[in-house]
Amino acid sequence: MTKSRLAFIGAGVIGLSCAWRAASAGLRVTVVDPAPASGASWVAGGMLAPVTEAWPGEEALLELGVESVRRWPGFAEELGVAAGQSAGLRTEGTVVVATGSGDRAELDTLADYLARLGRAVERLSGRELRRLEPALGPDVRGGLSVPGDLAVDNRMLLAALRTAAERAGATFVESAARAVLDDGTRVTGVRTDGADLESDVVIVCAGAHSGSLHPVLTGLVRPVKGEILRLAHRAGAFPPPSRTVRALVDGRPVYVVPRDGGGLVVGATQAETGFDTEVTVGGVRDLLRDAERVLPGIAEYALVESAAGLRPGSPDNLPLVGALGPEGLLVATGHHRNGMLLAPVTADAVLQLLHGRPVPDAMRPADPARVTAAAPSAGRGHRYPEEVARARVDQR
Amino acid sequence: MTKSRLAFIGAGVIGLSCAWRAASAGLRVTVVDPAPASGASWVAGGMLAPVTEAWPGEEALLELGVESVRRWPGFAEELGVAAGQSAGLRTEGTVVVATGSGDRAELDTLADYLARLGRAVERLSGRELRRLEPALGPDVRGGLSVPGDLAVDNRMLLAALRTAAERAGATFVESAARAVLDDGTRVTGVRTDGADLESDVVIVCAGAHSGSLHPVLTGLVRPVKGEILRLAHRAGAFPPPSRTVRALVDGRPVYVVPRDGGGLVVGATQAETGFDTEVTVGGVRDLLRDAERVLPGIAEYALVESAAGLRPGSPDNLPLVGALGPEGLLVATGHHRNGMLLAPVTADAVLQLLHGRPVPDAMRPADPARVTAAAPSAGRGHRYPEEVARARVDQR
Repeated sequence: MTKSRLAFIGAGVIGLSCAWRAASAGLRVTVVDPAPASGASWVAGGMLAPVTEAWPGEEALLELGVESVRRWPGFAEELGVAAGQSAGLRTEGTVVVATGSGDRAELDTLADYLARLGRAVERLSGRELRRLEPALGPDVRGGLSVPGDLAVDNRMLLAALRTAAERAGATFVESAARAVLDDGTRVTGVRTDGADLESDVVIVCAGAHSGSLHPVLTGLVRPVKGEILRLAHRAGAFPPPSRTVRALVDGRPVYVVPRDGGGLVVGATQAETGFDTEVTVGGVRDLLRDAERVLPGIAEYALVESAAGLRPGSPDNLPLVGALGPEGLLVATGHHRNGMLLAPVTADAVLQLLHGRPVPDAMRPADPARVTAAAPSAGRGHRYPEEVARARVDQR
Repeated sequence: MTKSRLAFIGAGVIGLSCAWRAASAGLRVTVVDPAPASGASWVAGGMLAPVTEAWPGEEALLELGVESVRRWPGFAEELGVAAGQSAGLRTEGTVVVATGSGDRAELDTLADYLARLGRAVERLSGRELRRLEPALGPDVRGGLSVPGDLAVDNRMLLAALRTAAERAGATFVESAARAVLDDGTRVTGVRTDGADLESDVVIVCAGAHSGSLHPVLTGLVRPVKGEILRLAHRAGAFPPPSRTVRALVDGRPVYVVPRDGGGLVVGATQAETGFDTEVTVGGVRDLLRDAERVLPGIAEYALVESAAGLRPGSPDNLPLVGALGPEGLLVATGHHRNGMLLAPVTADAVLQLLHGRPVPDAMRPADPARVTAAAPSAGRGHRYPEEVARARVDQR
């Protein structure tokens, strides 16, 4: 009997992580992507920050993120060995800071919420924060230190994942996937811009582009545009922070994630404007203004890149990880702002599903049945209909 | 008797214009540049704006600019025919506008100065300006209309010049020139990264890099960095202006030059930091803030490019066009902010010099003898010693 043929659609952080794990487990893996390691994963800031990203009402996402960040050090170590190159994990931790009084009140809400959940975080004054990170400017009035919220160099990670997947035996097909094919009962393959691919199991990891690949996915994933800047330290400029700095500036969130060698990633705007990856003047202006308010020394840094990516938004901000529609179809998408963070736990969950075993407990709320069951017809999204409709119009 | 062999060092707007004219006149032309049509000319905004650029004390530059802009329509037409493609001239004219009261006072000084020189310009209220250019925002309180100040799409121009020069028989050597060679009396050729080039006449048009090519040029040209942004209109955004918009915003100058198809070039910062072409956070922040203050609709535009170029600064802001040092050496450099503007009159002057005839009257003040005669030793610059010294340090 021949081994099942697995096709992963999408070679972003989720597709590559799942494909690497599956190929390492001895499965027969093909990855379909016209441009592996591009898209939202290439643009991403790389925060692994479930705690500072937490918000009342999103407890399931917090639990899932905490579970995944717990798996991150082992994942990074194993990946580094498998790929023979660093996965890019940074363990310096995160500070989240506030400028105006409204911003401080919002951070207090976050701290109180985390305390109620038993996740104590350390509150610090502006002076204490500047002692930790001298790059923080005088407008920073207070904040929290969250050493357990980490970061990863997304581009090092993608390179390591691709190498590791290939070393484990995964095959890459650099064509655009257009549709998951099925015979009414079970999947039969993938339609691509090149030759069709016969497959026994198809795993859709296509991020914001997942919604068009099979009727059961229609309306479940929408693109959420994010703009990001990359800066580089210049001789004579103030040294960069060593921790990730998240900030609220007059109510607007901004983050600055350090990279090796004096690099900084500044992100991210958020807009639902369809499949639009143009960087706008207003987006860049907001990011620079807010980041400079928190880290004034960056005025002297080089601006080396501006880019936009499309996060895959789900109806409830939780990812969609599980079986859906015809037999042999799995999805691992809808990770929204959290693709880097949730890659380890998602890859573990997908491997469990491929072996017919239960997913990790924290992943159970991500079962796509939760959104399809409530829909008027199977596979039709029931929330954010306006945004989804707009996205479709803009896509043309 | 064989024809003289001419070598033009530098294929920016000045080198290409001179080489095209010389080759068209039947001369034997070689152009040496490791990357033709790159550098400052590629980055430039393309204003042809002697009047709105005028300032008391720089009368010779104003006269030279006015003479060159007078030659521009004929130059563009002739070039368009010779190249079989448009030279990119735009004849919609220029408005120069003020925001704060200090900015309005400065524009009044400019208008009074121009009036004393007999160059009347039309003063307009904010409302009148917005009638001309509805894209101007409410912070624009008044300004001037200068229909004779034009603009050119620098990249269309460079493409046309290169094509026309090649069609006229110019040869391109894509190597870096390292030195003008001479035998103590007259030039013998050009040292390049590839093979040395034997030449009877060498014309240095190497912009900010001219100073290192021969000892007589040492200290005469310094790099003046300018950062620039390129924007593109997006569906739904407010239409772009049709004229060049120059503005003073709280004392800072900014300009916005329209391109075909909804493009805008926003410039330009000015800094003397040596051979440094990195775009800085502070530079981009200033350009975006000031341009948005004048044209608020650009917030919705795409930011498609940011770049920095090095203007070739001379000791007195006038270009250096004429013979210098050993027999057979000509220079056409030091055009600072005005390379695009002064290309036609410079090309005409160089052709006159090559034929042993006098340069156009307006070009006489650009004779490099003015700066070398006053120097402690021939060819050594006597002004801006600090900046020049710093530039040399940064260059390493």
